[in-house]
Amino acid sequence: VSSRLPNVGTTIFTVMSRMAAEAGAINLSQGFPDFNAEPVLFERVSHWMREGYNQYPPMAGVTVLREAIAAKVANLYGTAYDPETEVTVVAGATQGLFTAVTALVHPGDEVIVFEPVYDAYAPAIELQGARVVRLALHAPDYRPDWAAVATAITPRTRMIMINSPHNPTGSVWSAEDMTRLAELVRGTDIVIVSDEVYEHIVFDGRRHESCARHPALAERSVIVSGFGKTYHITGWKIGYVVAPAALMAEFRKVHQFNVFTVNTPMQYALADYMADASRHLGLAAFYQAKRDRFRAAMADSRFELLPCSGTYFQLARYRAIRDESDMAFVEWLTRDKKVAAIPVSAFSAAAEDEGVVRFCFAKHDDTLDAACERLVAL
Amino acid sequence: VSSRLPNVGTTIFTVMSRMAAEAGAINLSQGFPDFNAEPVLFERVSHWMREGYNQYPPMAGVTVLREAIAAKVANLYGTAYDPETEVTVVAGATQGLFTAVTALVHPGDEVIVFEPVYDAYAPAIELQGARVVRLALHAPDYRPDWAAVATAITPRTRMIMINSPHNPTGSVWSAEDMTRLAELVRGTDIVIVSDEVYEHIVFDGRRHESCARHPALAERSVIVSGFGKTYHITGWKIGYVVAPAALMAEFRKVHQFNVFTVNTPMQYALADYMADASRHLGLAAFYQAKRDRFRAAMADSRFELLPCSGTYFQLARYRAIRDESDMAFVEWLTRDKKVAAIPVSAFSAAAEDEGVVRFCFAKHDDTLDAACERLVAL
Ligand SMILES: CSCCC(=O)C(=O)O
Ligand SMILES: CSCCC(=O)C(=O)O
Repeated sequence: VSSRLPNVGTTIFTVMSRMAAEAGAINLSQGFPDFNAEPVLFERVSHWMREGYNQYPPMAGVTVLREAIAAKVANLYGTAYDPETEVTVVAGATQGLFTAVTALVHPGDEVIVFEPVYDAYAPAIELQGARVVRLALHAPDYRPDWAAVATAITPRTRMIMINSPHNPTGSVWSAEDMTRLAELVRGTDIVIVSDEVYEHIVFDGRRHESCARHPALAERSVIVSGFGKTYHITGWKIGYVVAPAALMAEFRKVHQFNVFTVNTPMQYALADYMADASRHLGLAAFYQAKRDRFRAAMADSRFELLPCSGTYFQLARYRAIRDESDMAFVEWLTRDKKVAAIPVSAFSAAAEDEGVVRFCFAKHDDTLDAACERLVAL
Repeated sequence: VSSRLPNVGTTIFTVMSRMAAEAGAINLSQGFPDFNAEPVLFERVSHWMREGYNQYPPMAGVTVLREAIAAKVANLYGTAYDPETEVTVVAGATQGLFTAVTALVHPGDEVIVFEPVYDAYAPAIELQGARVVRLALHAPDYRPDWAAVATAITPRTRMIMINSPHNPTGSVWSAEDMTRLAELVRGTDIVIVSDEVYEHIVFDGRRHESCARHPALAERSVIVSGFGKTYHITGWKIGYVVAPAALMAEFRKVHQFNVFTVNTPMQYALADYMADASRHLGLAAFYQAKRDRFRAAMADSRFELLPCSGTYFQLARYRAIRDESDMAFVEWLTRDKKVAAIPVSAFSAAAEDEGVVRFCFAKHDDTLDAACERLVAL
């Protein structure tokens, strides 16, 4: 069988979660909580199922959920999206990203991404016959280099994919970053695809710089977010996309033939659940406490912790413990020391060893404490 | 915005369901039941949510569901698929079809489809830069013309997409059809994508000719099916794909970057629910009774009913009632006479008027009776 994606294997998340399970390791690799969501959310799903809301919803999503999403975005970031034409519910943020790239990138185009980069971006671009232009972010703080962005932009640049708060590094873009980006794309027809799934997990009083906060970006942005990270339901696979109507029209053309629609009873349940804004607004404090607990315990280890301004990921340098390749280190850590992590180099095409691993701290305090006990002993 | 799908508008299903809602019409257009699934299925979802099964499942689906699918397919059709490497759970059959085409069709390829054809097939092909080769099926029985298929096959033919039981016509392929197809593809590397979502809805003692029944086809087939039509949950958007390991490996490369995974608690619930095979094996009799009720009542109308061997769709010629374009007729029927249907010509690229409409009979008996009262009065 001749492959459309000859260089793609199994994702690092699958590899590491499987290795963690086999080894009986504490799994701080793949990004998901080990605690449950709230029972009231499940009760709403049960309610809508029993009431018979189990058939196809409208293609773009159920109206009440699209309205709730538009209201949240308008309240938090100031841009008003029309639920009818500018909001679409998707089968997880990954599907939103894939669909946006498929709908908007043409063969021969160039798409700029920042590395380390979530592993779904590049294959989506390559499948369109377009070129991935990779700009490196560097430890310890993984800031974008705006001069390099300016140089990378060519007449073929169709899209720039951004992600703040950033997986895997936990870095968070500033208002100044957004201004620089807006300056660079002004007068072009470059589309921004902005992956904002960690929008509610920003620390130390920072604010999330959604593209929806910056009109010069919002007018050309497809913003992808989701409910998985925000409401502790990564396995429900429900997210949403907001974009100006002209971009959304193209997005929906592909969406309707890719997945057509998204789970009906869970959409209604999420609309109910979103009504209490404290559920997403309280998330930053919740995870900041976990970050602080994890960092405090790890201060006694031989890992060197890098800054963490958002997301539920903490990067750490491990070379003081063992001087070996990133994959060798995480295999040893998982199989022998029973804590699974992800090498940050797995988020780069070159996959050059960097001596940095990612820990997910979206875990019970007990889980974090048990993991730290093992990590401090190394 | 320059479009990847310049000729695509809103799907006919969205258009007609919206028109039906606006008009307050009985909606026999889009294919979904107006009755509910069984409470025991909802209880299983509630159970798994409460137990904390709300995070990412394995990329290909939860093991118990993949095992249940493989067991069902082996029992019914005789081909044993390995749950580990040959079964993948998808976010609805449409996503399975889209992903199969994306993973296996290259720019410049040709893909054969039979018209009338479900409207998601052609855009998926066109997005790959491949050519859609359309072979017409004709009323009243919409049989494939195997001589025409033989002529249409060229060295560029990468894939043939088939669908039996067939939406929208209700025709069902015979064992002889499968043999003819197998003969035509023997010695080529043509892949069959077989959309079998109506596999459990075949009437009058016919049997469903799954590609999994025919080894010469199974070895080159990606079979797509789902739970929506079978368990009355079209809005859950969960389906599955089975294929030999080499094809499935390519499928999964795209799947993992398109949707990555599918709803966890509902996967577990479906695995529980599938354990009782009477739930899918009883479906044919259930819908045959509805077909017979609908046809008996419509016998008094001026519609001419075409044969219906499977699916929950009944085709009917309407020209004895009004001599106008298909779209004009369904608009009149929906807005003035308060029964919504789909023009069969909407399933063809040329969209030439054929004087045939599709009614969905997956409805309460009361709904069917009420609709027939209106239709008989025309
Ligand atoms: C979609 S699986 C990966 C989960 C995740 O976002 C991560 O671990 O980075
Ligand atoms: C995916 S919406 C269309 C439902 C359906 O299968 C049909 O009406 O043909």
